[in-house]
Amino acid sequence: MLDLAIRNAEIVTAADRIRAEIGIRDGRIVTIAEDVGEAAEEIDAAGLLALPGGIDAHVHLEQPQGGGVVMADGFESGTRSAAAGGNTTVMPFALQQKGQSLREAVQAYHEAADGKCHVDTSFHLIITDPTPQVLGQELPALVKAGYTSFKVFMTYDDMVLNDAELLEVFDVARREKAMVMVHAEGYDAIRYMAKRLEEAGRTAPYYHAESRPQSVEREATHRAISHAELTDVPITIVHVSGRDPMEQIQWAKRRGMNVWAETCPQYIALTADDLKGLNMDFEGAKYVCSPPPRDSDSQKAIWEGLRDGTFDIFSSDHCPFRFEDPKGKDVEGARTSFRWVPNGIPGIETRMPILFSEGVSKGRIGLERFVALTATNPAKLFGLYPRKGTIAVGADADITLWDPSREVTISQSLMHHDCDYTPYEGLEVKGWPVRTILRGKTIFAEGEVTGGRDAGVYLERGTSQAFGG
Amino acid sequence: MLDLAIRNAEIVTAADRIRAEIGIRDGRIVTIAEDVGEAAEEIDAAGLLALPGGIDAHVHLEQPQGGGVVMADGFESGTRSAAAGGNTTVMPFALQQKGQSLREAVQAYHEAADGKCHVDTSFHLIITDPTPQVLGQELPALVKAGYTSFKVFMTYDDMVLNDAELLEVFDVARREKAMVMVHAEGYDAIRYMAKRLEEAGRTAPYYHAESRPQSVEREATHRAISHAELTDVPITIVHVSGRDPMEQIQWAKRRGMNVWAETCPQYIALTADDLKGLNMDFEGAKYVCSPPPRDSDSQKAIWEGLRDGTFDIFSSDHCPFRFEDPKGKDVEGARTSFRWVPNGIPGIETRMPILFSEGVSKGRIGLERFVALTATNPAKLFGLYPRKGTIAVGADADITLWDPSREVTISQSLMHHDCDYTPYEGLEVKGWPVRTILRGKTIFAEGEVTGGRDAGVYLERGTSQAFGG
Amino acid sequence: MLDLAIRNAEIVTAADRIRAEIGIRDGRIVTIAEDVGEAAEEIDAAGLLALPGGIDAHVHLEQPQGGGVVMADGFESGTRSAAAGGNTTVMPFALQQKGQSLREAVQAYHEAADGKCHVDTSFHLIITDPTPQVLGQELPALVKAGYTSFKVFMTYDDMVLNDAELLEVFDVARREKAMVMVHAEGYDAIRYMAKRLEEAGRTAPYYHAESRPQSVEREATHRAISHAELTDVPITIVHVSGRDPMEQIQWAKRRGMNVWAETCPQYIALTADDLKGLNMDFEGAKYVCSPPPRDSDSQKAIWEGLRDGTFDIFSSDHCPFRFEDPKGKDVEGARTSFRWVPNGIPGIETRMPILFSEGVSKGRIGLERFVALTATNPAKLFGLYPRKGTIAVGADADITLWDPSREVTISQSLMHHDCDYTPYEGLEVKGWPVRTILRGKTIFAEGEVTGGRDAGVYLERGTSQAFGG
Amino acid sequence: MLDLAIRNAEIVTAADRIRAEIGIRDGRIVTIAEDVGEAAEEIDAAGLLALPGGIDAHVHLEQPQGGGVVMADGFESGTRSAAAGGNTTVMPFALQQKGQSLREAVQAYHEAADGKCHVDTSFHLIITDPTPQVLGQELPALVKAGYTSFKVFMTYDDMVLNDAELLEVFDVARREKAMVMVHAEGYDAIRYMAKRLEEAGRTAPYYHAESRPQSVEREATHRAISHAELTDVPITIVHVSGRDPMEQIQWAKRRGMNVWAETCPQYIALTADDLKGLNMDFEGAKYVCSPPPRDSDSQKAIWEGLRDGTFDIFSSDHCPFRFEDPKGKDVEGARTSFRWVPNGIPGIETRMPILFSEGVSKGRIGLERFVALTATNPAKLFGLYPRKGTIAVGADADITLWDPSREVTISQSLMHHDCDYTPYEGLEVKGWPVRTILRGKTIFAEGEVTGGRDAGVYLERGTSQAFGG
Repeated sequence: MLDLAIRNAEIVTAADRIRAEIGIRDGRIVTIAEDVGEAAEEIDAAGLLALPGGIDAHVHLEQPQGGGVVMADGFESGTRSAAAGGNTTVMPFALQQKGQSLREAVQAYHEAADGKCHVDTSFHLIITDPTPQVLGQELPALVKAGYTSFKVFMTYDDMVLNDAELLEVFDVARREKAMVMVHAEGYDAIRYMAKRLEEAGRTAPYYHAESRPQSVEREATHRAISHAELTDVPITIVHVSGRDPMEQIQWAKRRGMNVWAETCPQYIALTADDLKGLNMDFEGAKYVCSPPPRDSDSQKAIWEGLRDGTFDIFSSDHCPFRFEDPKGKDVEGARTSFRWVPNGIPGIETRMPILFSEGVSKGRIGLERFVALTATNPAKLFGLYPRKGTIAVGADADITLWDPSREVTISQSLMHHDCDYTPYEGLEVKGWPVRTILRGKTIFAEGEVTGGRDAGVYLERGTSQAFGG
Repeated sequence: MLDLAIRNAEIVTAADRIRAEIGIRDGRIVTIAEDVGEAAEEIDAAGLLALPGGIDAHVHLEQPQGGGVVMADGFESGTRSAAAGGNTTVMPFALQQKGQSLREAVQAYHEAADGKCHVDTSFHLIITDPTPQVLGQELPALVKAGYTSFKVFMTYDDMVLNDAELLEVFDVARREKAMVMVHAEGYDAIRYMAKRLEEAGRTAPYYHAESRPQSVEREATHRAISHAELTDVPITIVHVSGRDPMEQIQWAKRRGMNVWAETCPQYIALTADDLKGLNMDFEGAKYVCSPPPRDSDSQKAIWEGLRDGTFDIFSSDHCPFRFEDPKGKDVEGARTSFRWVPNGIPGIETRMPILFSEGVSKGRIGLERFVALTATNPAKLFGLYPRKGTIAVGADADITLWDPSREVTISQSLMHHDCDYTPYEGLEVKGWPVRTILRGKTIFAEGEVTGGRDAGVYLERGTSQAFGG
Repeated sequence: MLDLAIRNAEIVTAADRIRAEIGIRDGRIVTIAEDVGEAAEEIDAAGLLALPGGIDAHVHLEQPQGGGVVMADGFESGTRSAAAGGNTTVMPFALQQKGQSLREAVQAYHEAADGKCHVDTSFHLIITDPTPQVLGQELPALVKAGYTSFKVFMTYDDMVLNDAELLEVFDVARREKAMVMVHAEGYDAIRYMAKRLEEAGRTAPYYHAESRPQSVEREATHRAISHAELTDVPITIVHVSGRDPMEQIQWAKRRGMNVWAETCPQYIALTADDLKGLNMDFEGAKYVCSPPPRDSDSQKAIWEGLRDGTFDIFSSDHCPFRFEDPKGKDVEGARTSFRWVPNGIPGIETRMPILFSEGVSKGRIGLERFVALTATNPAKLFGLYPRKGTIAVGADADITLWDPSREVTISQSLMHHDCDYTPYEGLEVKGWPVRTILRGKTIFAEGEVTGGRDAGVYLERGTSQAFGG
Repeated sequence: MLDLAIRNAEIVTAADRIRAEIGIRDGRIVTIAEDVGEAAEEIDAAGLLALPGGIDAHVHLEQPQGGGVVMADGFESGTRSAAAGGNTTVMPFALQQKGQSLREAVQAYHEAADGKCHVDTSFHLIITDPTPQVLGQELPALVKAGYTSFKVFMTYDDMVLNDAELLEVFDVARREKAMVMVHAEGYDAIRYMAKRLEEAGRTAPYYHAESRPQSVEREATHRAISHAELTDVPITIVHVSGRDPMEQIQWAKRRGMNVWAETCPQYIALTADDLKGLNMDFEGAKYVCSPPPRDSDSQKAIWEGLRDGTFDIFSSDHCPFRFEDPKGKDVEGARTSFRWVPNGIPGIETRMPILFSEGVSKGRIGLERFVALTATNPAKLFGLYPRKGTIAVGADADITLWDPSREVTISQSLMHHDCDYTPYEGLEVKGWPVRTILRGKTIFAEGEVTGGRDAGVYLERGTSQAFGG
């Protein structure tokens, strides 16, 4: 007999929309049928969509920060918020600090995560110190052990890799078949701009946006693509913010280059004007993230890219800092210059509702595309497929029941994170997750996260489908 | 109990590849499961792919011709050949002749088809005489009755519509939510070229290709897109042959226009050089179709378009004429000028093997994309989905079992059509259909078409998903 | 001894800016030197620019109209206005009416012009009835006789050529080395739109603009370019109004096609909003011309094209109708529908000041480019060079002395035409012609046209440089 | 009375082609007239073109090299060769070595040049060590003193500037109105490729080309353009080699960015295959330069760019090393790896004949465009205009008399440089300089350089016209 039967839902995959029942046993989908028969537990999902559980492939949790800053969310609250947002898998970053062994960084991150996760997790690595030891031994061993993706930064004082390092790292990625995620903003250009702005007394949070215009992101995107072309390796350009960098990706894809791209809610639901706060005040710090939100023309471009396949995945880039907190946005110095405002905003819980509402409910994208962007493609791109990312026989029973007609006004009071604000306060959305099922077990229902902090497991991953197959 | 169980196959949809069993009852898929249980009939599909039955959305069967020419295939032989090529649905054209009532044309076509189809069929209309009666009454009534698509021609003496007519017809299509298919080649430009070539004594079949260069197809494509923009209606540009017209479609899609596109095997497996025959002789007539095959650069472009989503569907444009036949390619006059050579080539049986072999086996496209192009997208674009086009619970049990490793040399001796040649003679392919299942019944297996000429039914269709939803 | 010496001017050509004296004898420039020596007449041009006299390659004068409409300007007033605007050559159109012999049309036009021209003139032909007689005999003979260019229309009831006719005419143009000018707007598309607008009661002059959107102009532009590609002939797309058609021309030029382009003052100084008049009233009729002015984005595009060489020439398309006149804009029916408002606006006198002020004075283009667009390129494109279009030894002494710092508010009271309004009323410009010299003789100075109505001569022309050389 | 009269020539400028006489006094053109009157010296130039003396804006002479390498040409032989190639001005580079004062570098270069120049010269600077002293004091002072342009390198061990340095230098250039010339190839990418090639034993000269593919040049071009966009300064991308980097420049120009571009003879007359020598031997070293020549598609692209204005200037990048010389191409190590082969080829003498023959004689560009690319535009771009770059009253009498019909086979035996080979050996050209006149004095005639090594003077320059005006 089945453990669980979900009846009366409309099941949506990246290609199909069908009406059928889902039968689950031992955490996996074992049958999809007109009638799956008896089950120990039954869910009547009439009027609801059954979507593959969301996979948020870009989140920062409990990541070490400099200067006394502490992230608002650790694994417990971060994954709790994820579950409430319809997600069943999140992929945070295990950051190598300069001078640190990569293996040790991963070990430490596992210790932080262990037993604290409401949803399944899998780590990307962040390479900041590509020593011969790291590239020659640690990284290959970790890829073999299922850490099949890592991120590199083209900016940030303590993380930036120069071009020689990027090329070396890309070379290893090709050899080991690891997916490289690239934060594409030009380090020197940002420093140049920041210095001029500070010299001109332009220090409010808003000038964070002016210090890293689209041309800076476009240049780094083009550079990363060129390095990938030279080293013949697939890459994913993450958190693409506007038309200029997007056009570089389109150009690369049209030339048949193996380039993949991600965008995020902030680039369709915020603009640089949000950083102005009220009269250029510190309220703007709530929206400081990198790359910064752009303008309405870029939002339009991002929608084109979401529709036409320029973007393969849609992630939150959840990177939460408390606003009224000297360990958060209000760290020492932040009020003297945008330079010191921690970069990042929360969004793990609002990712799917925002894309659903602004995309599906408003007719900009179809349901299948929504599923592809939020679950199927992330799973395929990062080696979780077919265990994750779809509703199909044999896959984990990760299912989000979604009410397409529920209308909600996003508000901090609804959030399950440990951050003290949401940048989407007041945004009205249509479409909302009402139940999240992780490997057959309900972990969130009707506003309550119920799975417990040991509900999630850690996922070793296979090779990205970007390498073929 | 199930009527049929298919076990051990790898099931492929436009998004997923899974290993599971398929359970069929009353012609429909009622369960997909790890174990579907007992069934009256069992198929062990180990080592095979289970693909949605092919939908060939562009075929000409028994279509009236002028000048004593007769098509090589009627419904019986055409659908037999289709079944042998892994197809379960074909969509031929009910042609309105000038002066004819559209309703009558459809009626006559039904009479020709009735009881003679090995696979399911559904008709597109062809509008050649857009009288007020046709546009105001017959066409709206037919669309309501499930004939939700029609084709218009921008060339051919007896079918061409001028711009005013195209605009009127597009207007009706928007109002009635019918999908317009456009044969985009410029009539006057072709006549201009043909006249000059004949004046210069260039009359061999090869000059058919020179008489309709890419610029002629590109111009008509741009014109059709512009008319669709003005009238705000979705259109499908059919049988796109090369880089020039393709770039117009890419441009339109990037601008967010509601434009869809089809290409065909002849544009990836033939070139204009094939029309030269042996030393510019009449052998070239075997390859005369419109638009003509182009060159290797265009083949490269077409592949880009198949990969990146420029093309939504892949059809055969099966339009067979016997080669050694005065009612076929060798009609009176054909040896005096390319102008009189009937336009069209057979291909209903080779469509899927060619795309599979040149695309999937050679690594140019993925399996999911193959399914999307040959089955799922045609179903969605022409209102057959979700009954047709996928392997999912609730859908018709139209399934092709495909051996991805079987190597075959295409040859007329293997074909099931009534044409006396195949233009792909000698082409070596890897991947071949070994069994075609139509609504749960095997209609083709191991080279034999077994379903009988009454296996197929006629399909009324819903509205194209291009209209939203 | 010289007849005339111009001293102290800055002489500008399409490539150079130099300080030197100009010596003139018998109507031609015979020396340019640091000191040209004595002369019968002396002009001190200190503070002024010496520019090649303007060549307005696109003007309509005394052109027969249907429906009782009469053009505001004949040769006398039109060329008077031209002289006052800094022009020394204008090129009006000799229109063949349907059924009329082309030779007769030219003859009649000569009779109308004879002895009435304040500046030199040369006629383009307009082909509306391309009979075998016209294409086989009259046109070749006229080209040989120095009428080396003609215009064709892709719209207008009484002038439109269909695609077959266009191709025939282009063919003759290639053979005879005549430059074809194309009015590129799609006839059927405009009729479709006009009918829908009228049915919806949208009949104010403003809807003229809505009846011929950019897509209509873009489509015709693409079509004309494609026909030119097929027939291998150079063409000039005239009066390009916006970004969409411009992009077609850029694409063609980048592909190395022999395509040339013209734009006009209305596309940088007016927008469709001007057609709204005051509250959608008949005032808008003052701005009705075809193609209609577009929007600010298109103005921006046009400037890019003026700067980067997309546009080769800048003409007025002077086509004047009196506003308060039943033989002009207020013809019978015009107040019932935009369809009856005569198409065209005056502008021969304001062409150069508007381009100078908005272009040179505002830093958008350089002085050399101004000269190229207004004089040198028209001369080269239409076979008048090197007699006309530059300030060089051997050329006709056609020189406009220009005060780059004079500020003028354009006003009907300043105009020398016979129209009763200027669409640029109130426009403030910087830079103004203070003296126009035609073949060594001052025909306009300080507001007064002084040359007399027999000052101008008729110019036979050579082959366009677009044919090479 | 005039010092010199040139009669019967066809005078060509960047805009005009006229027949007139040129009168010269005190080294300057004082009159152009139908008859300039008597003169002390007379030249009958019947059948010849009078072109503005060539300005080669990119040459390397006597530039310090590392590793015991010495340039083949110093000022004496380099300018001698220039004169024989129809040039009257050359612009070599005064290179600052790391740690060196910029002022001292300039001083040393003047000492090397003084009294040894057959043609006029003016120096660009090369900034390799942008210290605060250099950027804050020396460079501004030098710009004011007429050194109004400088070059920066994005590659080469001893010259490369990183992005922070580039941005600082661009910032100074904007402030001081100096034109920045950018050698755009990515340093780290080249090192990455060179290392891999050497590891694979691919060390023949040919692999120089493989070590710096177009993507490397394209990336650096995009990066330089982005930095210029950020700092709002005009730049010139020098020696553009192929389609990929060219498309970046076209994109920038279309967006209205202030970007200028240069290409060179090696990119239209050589390909990477030339580096293969005979069977991949050391002969290939004769063609080693950076960027390397590409392929025939890139040559086609370069011609499009020369025609359509993508390229503003055409220079030689003359950088000569003797082939059979241990201080030249055959320096120690060069036969063990391409890495040690000195980069550069001679070409100062063949620049104009190659562009004339391949461009003008073969109908790819017009004569006026030839003049613009080789003389007028370099003069305007680098602040030499109107003293140099045109044939006009007031300008220096720098005139090259050119025989457009003379046919010559380029050969080392004809060259006047001190290099021991020409990479264009055997190239047949049509069009050849027969006399070079520098400020009124013949310095080269019929194969003999006659002006003497003190014929040339040093030219202080004004601000580039790229800054407006």
